[in-house]
Amino acid sequence: MIPAPYLLYLGHSADPLAIKTSRGVAMFRGEDCVGEFRHDDCPLTLNLPRMGMAEGVAAGARTLILGIAGAGGKLGADLVNDAAAALEAGLNVASGLHQRLRDEPRLAALAAARGLQLFDVRDPPPGLAVGKGNHRAGNRLLTVGTDCSVGKMVTTLALARGLQARGVAADFRATGQTGVLIAGDGVAVDAVVADFISGAIEQLAPARDDDGWDLIEGQGSLYHPSFAGVSLGLLHGAQPRALVMCHEPGRPHMRGIPGRALPDLRDCLEANLAAARLTSPDVQAVGICLNTSGMDAEAARRLCDATADGLGLPCTDPVAFGVDAIIDQLCPAPSALSTIASR
Amino acid sequence: MIPAPYLLYLGHSADPLAIKTSRGVAMFRGEDCVGEFRHDDCPLTLNLPRMGMAEGVAAGARTLILGIAGAGGKLGADLVNDAAAALEAGLNVASGLHQRLRDEPRLAALAAARGLQLFDVRDPPPGLAVGKGNHRAGNRLLTVGTDCSVGKMVTTLALARGLQARGVAADFRATGQTGVLIAGDGVAVDAVVADFISGAIEQLAPARDDDGWDLIEGQGSLYHPSFAGVSLGLLHGAQPRALVMCHEPGRPHMRGIPGRALPDLRDCLEANLAAARLTSPDVQAVGICLNTSGMDAEAARRLCDATADGLGLPCTDPVAFGVDAIIDQLCPAPSALSTIASR
Repeated sequence: MIPAPYLLYLGHSADPLAIKTSRGVAMFRGEDCVGEFRHDDCPLTLNLPRMGMAEGVAAGARTLILGIAGAGGKLGADLVNDAAAALEAGLNVASGLHQRLRDEPRLAALAAARGLQLFDVRDPPPGLAVGKGNHRAGNRLLTVGTDCSVGKMVTTLALARGLQARGVAADFRATGQTGVLIAGDGVAVDAVVADFISGAIEQLAPARDDDGWDLIEGQGSLYHPSFAGVSLGLLHGAQPRALVMCHEPGRPHMRGIPGRALPDLRDCLEANLAAARLTSPDVQAVGICLNTSGMDAEAARRLCDATADGLGLPCTDPVAFGVDAIIDQLCPAPSALSTIASR
Repeated sequence: MIPAPYLLYLGHSADPLAIKTSRGVAMFRGEDCVGEFRHDDCPLTLNLPRMGMAEGVAAGARTLILGIAGAGGKLGADLVNDAAAALEAGLNVASGLHQRLRDEPRLAALAAARGLQLFDVRDPPPGLAVGKGNHRAGNRLLTVGTDCSVGKMVTTLALARGLQARGVAADFRATGQTGVLIAGDGVAVDAVVADFISGAIEQLAPARDDDGWDLIEGQGSLYHPSFAGVSLGLLHGAQPRALVMCHEPGRPHMRGIPGRALPDLRDCLEANLAAARLTSPDVQAVGICLNTSGMDAEAARRLCDATADGLGLPCTDPVAFGVDAIIDQLCPAPSALSTIASR
């Protein structure tokens, strides 16, 4: 386990989507976060006290969470320098980047010399097997999306907490570096060897024999040309009984690809359902979640209502309006789902 | 480069699909193969002289090709023992398994002690980037399939050679361990980190500005629950102008998954075209290739004709009947393709 409390790293980031790992930890493990580290050119904040490395240590921090992410997951010179400064100040360092901290000789040497730890949370679990797609028991819900970084993790965590609040057994299954940092376990599925994508998810969310739910965090999008393979393998491995589709209205283009439009919501939902049927023939859509953080509340409400009417499914913003409307579809499981089938 | 000539390993294999790497090397690099190594319980043969390791060395072999493959690519005790015997006899060893030869201490020590080499052909190239799906110039053809091991590599190689025979520049782009062993380069796409599937293929088959073709070997199937993520990322990364679909008639179930039926040919073709349009909006199907090795010639001919009539595309068995009918669609490029669009 990664020692808390945490100092959250924002570095030089100017893109709000680039700090989503630090933001996720702040949102869902806020009680473990003492501050944020950012350079003068970083216009972003998580509304935590701004601290240098030594100040973080003085405030009780034990680990710097290197919670920024660009496509490709590279560990640039800035990051290495800041991670080294953290180690020199006495902090462990945790990272979700593809490039591993331990493979950076300077960091490995510093950590060894000072008795500190480097955590590469994207390391896949050992002994993965290929997926088989054979039927397994249990209720599983997967979040899917029109794009990367549209709120799949936040939605999945909200659903898990909402079910738990109603007394239903519910397990959040993390599939990305932020989710793994929040949950303390899981598998960063985009970092496994490609042959094992679906198998990794079969292992992460095994058969369950109660009426509870596994809430599986989705990744990427079937419509994202960088990552659709991950999304499809995850969908097949999840073998979901229920899908929730996530979307951020007004996004100008697919994440990282200027000029590439987002898919139509209905097309995206139908493509996900069609693909999911390979391993889960009775899969159903149970809701839409919009990230309306860029809109005023009234416009957000109207958009949710219009989307719900248009697609015939509950639609909400999990942060602004909660997820009760979707949980009503799942709880009590499994009988409620049969009524959805007749829509 | 892996030193030739080769001794091809069949081991204890009883499943013809399990020796497809050794068979592929025998088919396409036959001039470099001096013999086959198999145990007494192996009922299979590549019609090469059967040899022990020392006999192989005496016949001139320099490398044992561990050309067998099961799902998951494990290196079992039998394989390690036989690889060790090969090293002791003075042979280099090459493998396409996920589990690396170099990670087996006994093999690493033996190779070092004797000055021999271990080749793990599934090692990804360094410095992969995520794919972007941005338009790139050039003619690219991708083979896709109803299942694994239905003839995609054989078809792709046949198309490359057929185009070359007509004087058209044509490059075979290997994406699996067998293809890499045959071509001497390429990338085993099922072994890259999942985030880089499409990016690896963008790198493997970059833009080309002539009228020639890149012939890209497909992997798996969009309908295979173990590997569909690899197939989809490969499809997006290939950005193919043309697809050829491969199928083995009469196969009882999807490879490795008893009870799971193969998809309908038309459904499978349409699903591949729909997915391919994400990065290649004008993609077209240009042919169907059947592996009819289990049928008599007359029945095979009738089935190809019926399939061609049913789908409105040339259909052939590349080994039995050649690929001229498909090459007619590609050559001369690019004008011929415009006539297909009006079908």
